[in-house]
Amino acid sequence: MTTVQFNLETYLRHSQMRVQAALDRYLPLQYPDNLYESMRYSLLGGGKRLRPILCLAACELSGGREEQAMPTACALEMVHTMSLIHDDLPAMDNDDYRRGMLTNHKKFGEDMAILAGDALLAYAFQLIAEETVGVRPEQLVKVLGRVGKAASGSGLVGGQVVDLASEGQDIDLGTLEYIHAHKTGALLEISVVSGAILAEANEETIQRLTRYSQCIGLAFQIVDDLLDITATQAELGKTAGKDIRDGKATYPRLLGEVQSRQRAEALVAEAIATLDVFKERARPLQSIASFILERRS
Amino acid sequence: MTTVQFNLETYLRHSQMRVQAALDRYLPLQYPDNLYESMRYSLLGGGKRLRPILCLAACELSGGREEQAMPTACALEMVHTMSLIHDDLPAMDNDDYRRGMLTNHKKFGEDMAILAGDALLAYAFQLIAEETVGVRPEQLVKVLGRVGKAASGSGLVGGQVVDLASEGQDIDLGTLEYIHAHKTGALLEISVVSGAILAEANEETIQRLTRYSQCIGLAFQIVDDLLDITATQAELGKTAGKDIRDGKATYPRLLGEVQSRQRAEALVAEAIATLDVFKERARPLQSIASFILERRS
Repeated sequence: MTTVQFNLETYLRHSQMRVQAALDRYLPLQYPDNLYESMRYSLLGGGKRLRPILCLAACELSGGREEQAMPTACALEMVHTMSLIHDDLPAMDNDDYRRGMLTNHKKFGEDMAILAGDALLAYAFQLIAEETVGVRPEQLVKVLGRVGKAASGSGLVGGQVVDLASEGQDIDLGTLEYIHAHKTGALLEISVVSGAILAEANEETIQRLTRYSQCIGLAFQIVDDLLDITATQAELGKTAGKDIRDGKATYPRLLGEVQSRQRAEALVAEAIATLDVFKERARPLQSIASFILERRS
Repeated sequence: MTTVQFNLETYLRHSQMRVQAALDRYLPLQYPDNLYESMRYSLLGGGKRLRPILCLAACELSGGREEQAMPTACALEMVHTMSLIHDDLPAMDNDDYRRGMLTNHKKFGEDMAILAGDALLAYAFQLIAEETVGVRPEQLVKVLGRVGKAASGSGLVGGQVVDLASEGQDIDLGTLEYIHAHKTGALLEISVVSGAILAEANEETIQRLTRYSQCIGLAFQIVDDLLDITATQAELGKTAGKDIRDGKATYPRLLGEVQSRQRAEALVAEAIATLDVFKERARPLQSIASFILERRS
């Protein structure tokens, strides 16, 4: 791998700004106002915009233009936001705060939070179908089908169901990997792959980007589990984080801390190597992969 | 209008059987089993299958084949089922029974009911995108976009939000028509229109079917409101039904019973006349329109 001469921080900030502007434009306030306020509250209220940025970067790597991918990029953020709103509900994780803000149902009521999530999910498909320009309908149908799959029982909902069923249970590594591959992995994968499909990338490119997305998805999750321990140790002086107190299966618990970190490093190295063939054009995605190991929160 | 020599009962029964078999085939039991059991419980547990049958009938009227429309027909039933599962939740209408069966959350828990609804909604789009055969991708993208719109804030969720906000309020006829045009009308309209789009119907056919669907959607709702009064009178010997006790705005309340029935009859007559130009091929849809006035439950 060549040395990366690339300022990731600037790249992420610029991408986030364009995504934020597009999200605001695609979901203007309209009647019924309280519904759209609720949808916009959770959609525009922050977040890393990882999924849209991966989509835009994969489209760029594949030689596509931003306008081809922006509606899908924003739609992926809407699907992600829907899953957060519904996961926070009292019947699920029952969280009052997210990203330092009241959760949707604490602010707008449970009924509105359920409906805002439903509307975001349905609108995501409308947005891809109606706002995408410069893409052949064949490619759009592929993207729409795969986004549907990633958001459904064979994607994030399936992962969430197994995660809920596993709470307080002893689960094996296979189940843990199923949860992560579905709960977070499926949407990350289609975020990357949709960018390539929209740009009409060839089969080899799609294969490489698929592998890349699987590696970073898993690495991201392992680092999350590791941060849960270290962040809590630093902040609270405790030897174990929230996951362990909740009896949640994590990589450090199943593999140990040292082996977990090694696994994450190996996955990131594989993600980067998989894209070496694209040379300069791979810099954004390769830098994002490196960043996963370095992040502190 | 010519005399209708057409056995609607047989037609509906046969269509329901084919739809039921397709729903069962498109959503087999799979891992995670409890999620798919919950989805199948509400999806396969009965109902008139009005939306799928309208879609299939409109496709047939437009000269299309059943295989072109069946995935969309089933997807529309999934969207409808999602809205019923979520509407029944404690945070919404808090209903324990539907169609004589326990509601989804009473049977599987609130968390599973929320997730089963989400999964049905997302899978609906996957199904249309991946299982439709013999339809050009241009047409599929149109259908996917319009189903998304009908299920979102500018469709059924928008209607549901205004309905919830109107409970116990004095609302005018304009608001009442907004609620029905969105809460039930939008999905009925795309049910009919999607069948025509999939069969590549010309613009005039689509216009006529759009008008037809708007007329029957509104007529259906007015009859619903009338039945709420008459059915309750017959069964309970009371002078007013559930809607009136709940302080709900209804057509009889705003227009009076006689004028409401006249309005429904005029709408059905218009729906039927709009399709006269299609002669024999309009029989199923025309008979369904007539049936709306005759139904007793």
